[in-house]
Amino acid sequence: MSNGKSHMKLGAFIMSVGHHVAAWRHPEAGATDILNIDFYKNIAQTAERGKFDMLFLADVLSVQDDDVSLKYKASICFEPLTLLSALSTVTKHIGLAATISTSYNEPFHIARKVASLDHISRGRAAWNVVTSNLESEALNFNRKNHLEHAVRYERAREFLEVVKGLWDSWEKDALIIDKKSGVFADEKKVHTLNHQKRFFSVKGPLNISNPPQGHPVIIQAGSSEAGKQLAAETADVIFTAWQTLKEAQAFYKEVKSLVEDYGRSPEDLKIMPGVLPIIGKTEQEAKEKEQLLQELVLPELGVSLLSGLLGIDLSPYPIDGPLPDLPNVDEINGGKSRYQLLLDLAKREKLTIRQLSLRIAGARGHRTIKGTAEQIADQLEEWFINDAADGFNIMAPYFPGGLEDFVDLVIPELQRRGLFRTEYTGKTLRDHLGLKRPGNQFTKALEKA
Amino acid sequence: MSNGKSHMKLGAFIMSVGHHVAAWRHPEAGATDILNIDFYKNIAQTAERGKFDMLFLADVLSVQDDDVSLKYKASICFEPLTLLSALSTVTKHIGLAATISTSYNEPFHIARKVASLDHISRGRAAWNVVTSNLESEALNFNRKNHLEHAVRYERAREFLEVVKGLWDSWEKDALIIDKKSGVFADEKKVHTLNHQKRFFSVKGPLNISNPPQGHPVIIQAGSSEAGKQLAAETADVIFTAWQTLKEAQAFYKEVKSLVEDYGRSPEDLKIMPGVLPIIGKTEQEAKEKEQLLQELVLPELGVSLLSGLLGIDLSPYPIDGPLPDLPNVDEINGGKSRYQLLLDLAKREKLTIRQLSLRIAGARGHRTIKGTAEQIADQLEEWFINDAADGFNIMAPYFPGGLEDFVDLVIPELQRRGLFRTEYTGKTLRDHLGLKRPGNQFTKALEKA
Repeated sequence: MSNGKSHMKLGAFIMSVGHHVAAWRHPEAGATDILNIDFYKNIAQTAERGKFDMLFLADVLSVQDDDVSLKYKASICFEPLTLLSALSTVTKHIGLAATISTSYNEPFHIARKVASLDHISRGRAAWNVVTSNLESEALNFNRKNHLEHAVRYERAREFLEVVKGLWDSWEKDALIIDKKSGVFADEKKVHTLNHQKRFFSVKGPLNISNPPQGHPVIIQAGSSEAGKQLAAETADVIFTAWQTLKEAQAFYKEVKSLVEDYGRSPEDLKIMPGVLPIIGKTEQEAKEKEQLLQELVLPELGVSLLSGLLGIDLSPYPIDGPLPDLPNVDEINGGKSRYQLLLDLAKREKLTIRQLSLRIAGARGHRTIKGTAEQIADQLEEWFINDAADGFNIMAPYFPGGLEDFVDLVIPELQRRGLFRTEYTGKTLRDHLGLKRPGNQFTKALEKA
Repeated sequence: MSNGKSHMKLGAFIMSVGHHVAAWRHPEAGATDILNIDFYKNIAQTAERGKFDMLFLADVLSVQDDDVSLKYKASICFEPLTLLSALSTVTKHIGLAATISTSYNEPFHIARKVASLDHISRGRAAWNVVTSNLESEALNFNRKNHLEHAVRYERAREFLEVVKGLWDSWEKDALIIDKKSGVFADEKKVHTLNHQKRFFSVKGPLNISNPPQGHPVIIQAGSSEAGKQLAAETADVIFTAWQTLKEAQAFYKEVKSLVEDYGRSPEDLKIMPGVLPIIGKTEQEAKEKEQLLQELVLPELGVSLLSGLLGIDLSPYPIDGPLPDLPNVDEINGGKSRYQLLLDLAKREKLTIRQLSLRIAGARGHRTIKGTAEQIADQLEEWFINDAADGFNIMAPYFPGGLEDFVDLVIPELQRRGLFRTEYTGKTLRDHLGLKRPGNQFTKALEKA
């Protein structure tokens, strides 16, 4: 590679039967398979055939319960940890990343479940650490409103600290398992954590031993100021959304430098924006494919989706008019980076509510790229070699066809260019992503003492 | 069948690499396989070969962290929901039951995860509803001590109410999925729950549709007064521990009558005590097998296990003396039915601490039966035909051998006697257990109105 980088990293992002809000209506989408395990088995095996680094499951802890959303939106899905565990036994190499919120969970449960998935899959687990930012989620968890942005991130940081501490609570050589003497573990290598801070008080140790990867891979998905800091300090992968090369480069540069501020190497954090690819045999075919999907978006559902993303009900406003005056990003308490991105986009391109809703109906704020396999590869390569991304989370517009196209047409082109692996060479997800195994905080403390 | 009952129900109870505390030291136990998914795949497939109704995973949310337990006890295990999800794709018929505590979880998560497992496995999920009764668990979940017994049960009852409401929140025919019109669901058949009571405030609806079984099977494991009431009102299966036919018959009669008090049929609740079978080709071989396991119990570990079950540290007392004076069951806040059972057993048979610890090292309070396959079958048949049990949870002393012996030797004997199925006839766990699909609270309310 000209810039000394290794291959790009690729995640197969899975949300419902496709990323596009009208995915389920696509003639080739498996709509009635939305809760059919064989459908996801096929997706997972297709991604593994394409040598993807990981499957990456989106998540949210509620459904939008207005009548429009309930009627027109495919708002049901498998729970990520159960689905990925099921898929672990029908795949061999591909990483398994679950989105899990720190806002309404307990760190002991999450440390344990993700460690369990890491053992079950022999080192292929990842956790996409998110904070919950929807009122509808709060209402399912004993609250009237969701946590304030700064508090969410403070809680997330402490949550991660507890989880990593629990993963370290059994050192990697703590197990003895000597039948003759009856010694199961070296008790000096099993540690209580005794964590007691603002949000959590957790004694430990965990009831499952050190995960095969030491720590399963940590993905962080917020691009707000607090999100960037948390990622730079604690994450292995950052999942982000950018529309233009320039913005993405600026973000890349800033975050890689922040990583160094925390005493880590820039290679320790992989930056992987989301992209929604629409692939045709010709440019024209790609355009038609996009148009078909866009035509399947019912206007009221588009407005409801946009309202959900912004956290503001837009149904009272004229659909062919501009966005109403909206609060400044500092004043909102939802997902800040997504909010700012949508406002910027509407302003930059002078979009009406309908136009903006159609623009996000597919990629939901992420970048849409379209064209032939060569053109898709060009666009990925451009960002990769120009320090805008270490790889991408590929958001198939619908399943299974959208992913099959990518695997059968784009991956071979990336491989021809030397931009992507032709075989898995490592065993764990950390191996795939080129990430070091983290040290253990208890042995580090001992070494220092 | 002489008494008109159908076949007995059998669960394959899984705790660590065997139920006996020294299981991992047994020459034929897969000790180093304790976190090897292939080992559990083999166990699951063996149980399915034996036509078991279900795999039944034990659970606890902490390890005993005294040095003796950490050193000598196999205290790590997979988390039940991730393990069962992984096993769902390598089995076809067998039910998948996870023990999950209501004390340190949120009902939305549990409703969703168990529904997800039910969809993944096409109707084979069950939830063993327990309350957490160990101080060591409380300390992993932001508490200094665990909830008081009555509060635990009140919380459990409300937790179950929320979970069942969420399972009902999508009626079973709510999904339309009509690509042409764009209608995904009949919004009138999707319900918010708006639960707001003492412990929980949960709006709903759930973000996964009605589970294939309507409600996954509910197992309840407490035999205290509060436990019996909860089971009689809400459970499909009761998992219990009795040493003698008489006690078991009294319990069976009482609970079946309680079930009727709640307007349910006695067949709606299956009573399945735990039994630990030690099977030999001859009676002598069975005795030797038991002796071998008992000799593998290190005395200090036996005392630590007994201390854990009673919630009282027995290490200061002479191991060959009697139990010290212990509080009355009304004064303790741990697992009440187990506590009473152990005190009764020690008193009835005048056991020393060492003897009592060895008695529970295997079955941990459940009944041990030993002998040839015929003798084992006799003992199961006696309880089954004399209204002491609808079936049993079989606690293999060690894996995989202990389960293989049962499947290869005892099951054929039960089948010969017409006491157990020779093939699976239904598709779901409810089918296997002979349980009706529950009604939906929202449609029931409508029908009444």
